[in-house]
Formats: sequence, C-alpha cells, structure tokens
Amino acid sequence: MTLASAPASSTTQTPQLAPPSDSRERVSQAFKGLQDRICQKLAAVDGSGQFQEDSWQRPDGGGGRSRVMKQGDVFEQGGVNFSEVWGDRLPPSILMQRPEAKGHGFYATGTSMVLHPHSPYVPTVHLNYRYFEAGPVWWFGGGIDLTPYYPFEADVVQFHQTIKAACDRHHKDYYPNFKRWCDEYFYLKHRQETRGVGGIFFDYQDGRGELYRGPDPAGPAAQHSQQVGELPQRSWEQLFTFAIDCGDAFLPAYVPIVEKRRDTPYGERERDFQLYRRGRYVEFNLVYDRGTIFGLQTNGRTESILMSLPPLVRWEYSYQPEADSPEAKLYDIFLKPQDWVNWEVKLQDKKS
Amino acid sequence: MTLASAPASSTTQTPQLAPPSDSRERVSQAFKGLQDRICQKLAAVDGSGQFQEDSWQRPDGGGGRSRVMKQGDVFEQGGVNFSEVWGDRLPPSILMQRPEAKGHGFYATGTSMVLHPHSPYVPTVHLNYRYFEAGPVWWFGGGIDLTPYYPFEADVVQFHQTIKAACDRHHKDYYPNFKRWCDEYFYLKHRQETRGVGGIFFDYQDGRGELYRGPDPAGPAAQHSQQVGELPQRSWEQLFTFAIDCGDAFLPAYVPIVEKRRDTPYGERERDFQLYRRGRYVEFNLVYDRGTIFGLQTNGRTESILMSLPPLVRWEYSYQPEADSPEAKLYDIFLKPQDWVNWEVKLQDKKS
Repeated sequence: MTLASAPASSTTQTPQLAPPSDSRERVSQAFKGLQDRICQKLAAVDGSGQFQEDSWQRPDGGGGRSRVMKQGDVFEQGGVNFSEVWGDRLPPSILMQRPEAKGHGFYATGTSMVLHPHSPYVPTVHLNYRYFEAGPVWWFGGGIDLTPYYPFEADVVQFHQTIKAACDRHHKDYYPNFKRWCDEYFYLKHRQETRGVGGIFFDYQDGRGELYRGPDPAGPAAQHSQQVGELPQRSWEQLFTFAIDCGDAFLPAYVPIVEKRRDTPYGERERDFQLYRRGRYVEFNLVYDRGTIFGLQTNGRTESILMSLPPLVRWEYSYQPEADSPEAKLYDIFLKPQDWVNWEVKLQDKKS
Repeated sequence: MTLASAPASSTTQTPQLAPPSDSRERVSQAFKGLQDRICQKLAAVDGSGQFQEDSWQRPDGGGGRSRVMKQGDVFEQGGVNFSEVWGDRLPPSILMQRPEAKGHGFYATGTSMVLHPHSPYVPTVHLNYRYFEAGPVWWFGGGIDLTPYYPFEADVVQFHQTIKAACDRHHKDYYPNFKRWCDEYFYLKHRQETRGVGGIFFDYQDGRGELYRGPDPAGPAAQHSQQVGELPQRSWEQLFTFAIDCGDAFLPAYVPIVEKRRDTPYGERERDFQLYRRGRYVEFNLVYDRGTIFGLQTNGRTESILMSLPPLVRWEYSYQPEADSPEAKLYDIFLKPQDWVNWEVKLQDKKS
C-alpha cells in the first residue's frame, strides 16, 4: 500500500508525542506574530491602504482579530485574519478525518489571508496556517497558493521556488508532496480547472510520519508528483517551526511579483477577464473550501470567513477565451498542474 | 407526532399509485411548454433582449435546452432551462430522502429559471419545477420565490396572492405549508436572513398525502405557518396539474411588478446595494441550493447550472445599512418570514 492510499485512520500508527504544556499559547502567539509581520509589510508595499482591525469574540468560545484593507493602491481588498476558537466538539467533516477526536473538546488557532489586487497583472494570493488540538490528537495544517489572471511563467516559477526553498529546509519530501496535495485540493471539479497555479497544501501533520493524504490519489496532479517513502517521526517542535517558516515564506514569494507588475497599464479587457476569473474563486471557496465550511459549521464569524470573497465579481454564461490569446494560455497551461520549479529547465530541454 | 416531524421514510406509508405509462413524455413536454411560454412573454416584456438557445447532451444520459438573455432592456441576465436527464443512480443527497430509490436508475426532468434585472427596483426571481422517477418511487418538486432589493410591500403582496390563488385551486393547505417550506429552505443560516421574501417550495410530493417536510420544524418560519392535517391521497394526475399550474402562475405574479418598477430612475447607491445583495444569491446557490448540488453531483452541464449566478456581484466586508433607510427596511422586514398575503390586513389592524 502506498502512502497516498493510506486510510484516514490506522490503529497500527505510532502513538503521537504529546505537545508541550504551553503549546496553545506558543502557537497562537506565533500566528499573531505572522499576522503582524504580513500586515506591516503589505501596508508598506501598498503605500496607501491601511489595515483596519476588528477584534471579535465568538459566543461559543474564543475570538480573533480581523484586519481588512479596502481600496489601497495595490490591493482592492485584502484581509489577514487571526483566530483562536474552542468548543465542545469538532464538526463532522473533521471528525471523519480524525475519529480519535470524537467525544473531545477542541482548540483551533490559525492565520489566514486573501489578497485581491486591483490590477489583473498582479495575482490573487491565499495563505492559511492552522493548529488543532482535540483530546488525544493535535495537528498542523495549511498552505499557500497563487491565482494569477494573466500568465507570466517567471512569476510562478519564482513563487514556487521560494516556497520550495522554505520546505526543503525542513524535509526534502515536503515540497513535492505538499505541492501535489495543493494541486488536488484547489481543484474545481465542475470546471475541470485548478484554482490557480497552486503552491503547497497539507493537513493533519501530527508527527506520526504520515506525509501525504490528498483528496484523490489518482487526481489531476498524479503525473506531476513523486511517491516518497515514509518520513521519520517528526516532533511537535519540528512541525511548529515548519508551519511558521512556511508562513514567513509568503512575503519573499509574493512581494517581488507585486513590485514587478503593479504599474503595468491594463484596459477593460484585462479587468473584465479578472472579474470573470474571480468568479472561480467564489465557486471554490463556497463549494469546496475546508476552511470556509469549518467556519460556517462552527458558527464562526461570517464576515471574517467570507472576507476571502472578491470585492467585485462577474459571471458570464458560456465564456470562452479567444484562441491564441493570453487568456487561452492561462486556461491551457496555468490552470493545469505543472512542474513549476523545473519550468525553465523544461523549456530549455524542448529548445535544445 | 405532527406531520412536520414525520421521518423521511416510513414503512407504514400508503403505497404509491403508479404513474401513467407515458408519464415521462407528458411531464417533459409540459415542462418544455412552460419554458416556451415563459421565454416568449419575457422577451416581449423586455422588448429588446432575445433568448439565445443552446441545446446540449449529457454524456451520462439525457440533455436539455438552455435559453439565456444577456443585456436586455429590463434583464441584465436571464436564463430559462429545460433539462431531462437519466442515469444509473441518484446522488447520495437525494437517496437519503428517498431510500426506496436505492439500487434503481433514475429519470429527472425540470424547468428552472433565474432573472437578474438591471434595475435595483425590479426583484430577482427564481422558478424551478421538476419531476423524478426512480424504481418504485416518483415525485414532483419545485417552487418559485422573489428576491427584492428595495422594499415595496405592494409588490410582495401581489406576488404572494397570485401564487396562493394558484395553490388554492388545488388544495387549501398547499399555500400555507409550501410558503413555510420556502421560508425555511431559502434561508441563509450563516447570515440569519431569508434569501428574499419567499413564495412557495415543495419537494417529494408523491401523492401519499405527506404534505410538509421542511428542513427544520422549529425553523425561522414556524411562527408564521399553521399545522394542518394529513392530505387525502393525491393522484399522479392531480400533482402533475398542480406543478404545471404553479409554473404558469409565475408570469401573472411577476410581470406586473416589472411593468410597475422598470422605469423608476435609480442611482449609484441603489445599484451598489443591488450588487452587494446579489452576493447573498451566490452564497445561497453555492452553499445550500439542492438543485445546484444535484447538478454538480450528477456531472450536469456546469454553464447551465451556474447560469443562476448574477452577471455582476459585489462583496463588502462588514456592510451595515444606514438606520431608517430603505436598505435597513429590507433587512428588518423583508428578509424575515412574514405573512405576506395578509399584510395589508395587518397594517390596517395596527392603524385601527
């Protein structure tokens, strides 16, 4: 049996190491710090927009601080949330994946972010890192992914290489597996499209050496991933550091793209296409996204959960990109899983 | 035990009467006719926009004809679909409600419509009527509901009274029960709002006299509905005629509102509010709607299923209507279940 087809829960797994006694405080502090660093830098990059903070309490336990920028110079809307919630029971969608948590209270904390730039040449980007404890189990999850509207290979390669470098510092098998998981997770089945060009995604990282459990081992990304052997057991400290390092890889992965593209002039055609493609973002978040569903199922703060939705969106019946256009290139290449870190090498291979 | 809390399936139910041998042909012809009548009248009302038809085949069995109007004088986008599909098995969401259908092939046909007018003073409207056969069971379902952006009591009362009159011709208990079911079905739990001012909704009408099975007997509409006794058994013919009559009640219920409001001038404020409220339509359709989920689960034609989504939509973090504004009135009165058919009476009662 390969790792990819491992069952959701196995009774023969190595028992989990216990987290440190101050785990919740350490993780929530680190996620708040990540939110602070991201907001500070994004405000500086934007130059005009400021984040407005709402602190909120959750009636059933916990709360958070939502930070939203509206109508900045670069960002039409951007939200960076921190939240920390607890309750009597996890929702059914998570208990299916972590049956050991049944009958236990839970604690969950995380930082999440979605940025919708004005310019169709600057990609939308999403980040989410989170940590759960529930009775005998704990785990880290999250990821980062990029959604360009216009196809610039160099931007995507730089994004993926930066994320890969962060992963490689922790384990060489992380990037190839979590890249594949991302391609499979951010996939719109009803459109047969990836949401964007991916990045990394992982869930249920609990140190027991189980690396990959994507939604579909035979999914669209299968041809671009490699099967790897089982990881040695990872400690809580190792996974904690890994999650925060991934979070800190966002700014160097994304900011250079903003700087490069923010001043490129665009017209109505490009704006219309961006608004149309934003519709896919809405479709994904409302139909498939685990974080959105978790939030709505646990009576989360709706405004913070749906802050990920774009400020202006278009749907158009039966839209088709013109042949040989940049829009067609997005569909043909960028909305399918690709081996982005080796992209330039592949282009050169074809030329030689 | 009240009807409202009757289990999804009971072994003591009266057996179903068999449908006539030409049931599928008769229902699909009638639904096509309904589509024709609606499109013809709407094109005449619009005066400028025309419906473009796409005929499509479903690879797994069946097909349909989608008719879409874009950028008419009145309708910014309108879609009226007919479809007729069949396959080996119903999706799990329906089998849970109709376990007798398990292990059987299915046949489903229906007409559905969503209209998104340009003017914020003309409401969005949705209609869907459908018929299923699966092994030993068959049923009719559907409904119609109105989603105004600005609050005009007279429009809503006229809409509900027209629908009620159509229902009353078939059974006096239909309207109060299906009106309640509609309020409960078109409800956005995460917003604690109805989608609009409702209308009627029913599902699983199979003649066995079970009238009401809303999603939540203690739901938001409970105070505005009445418990009724069990219906006498209904024949296939009676339910068929009822469904088509309900479909034909759409034009007299809606067209007078269009005629009354289409030429009212509006500004940026009203348009912005309309685009914002359209976001709720998207949220409902992608998160809760049974028809959308059925379509996506059965590999339906995505463009036809998502034709219901508005052409342009806005989301705004933490929007709140101004106090004592028309927008606030919509939230306070129109997005909560109300006894619309008796509305004027109630107003008079308060005055006297």
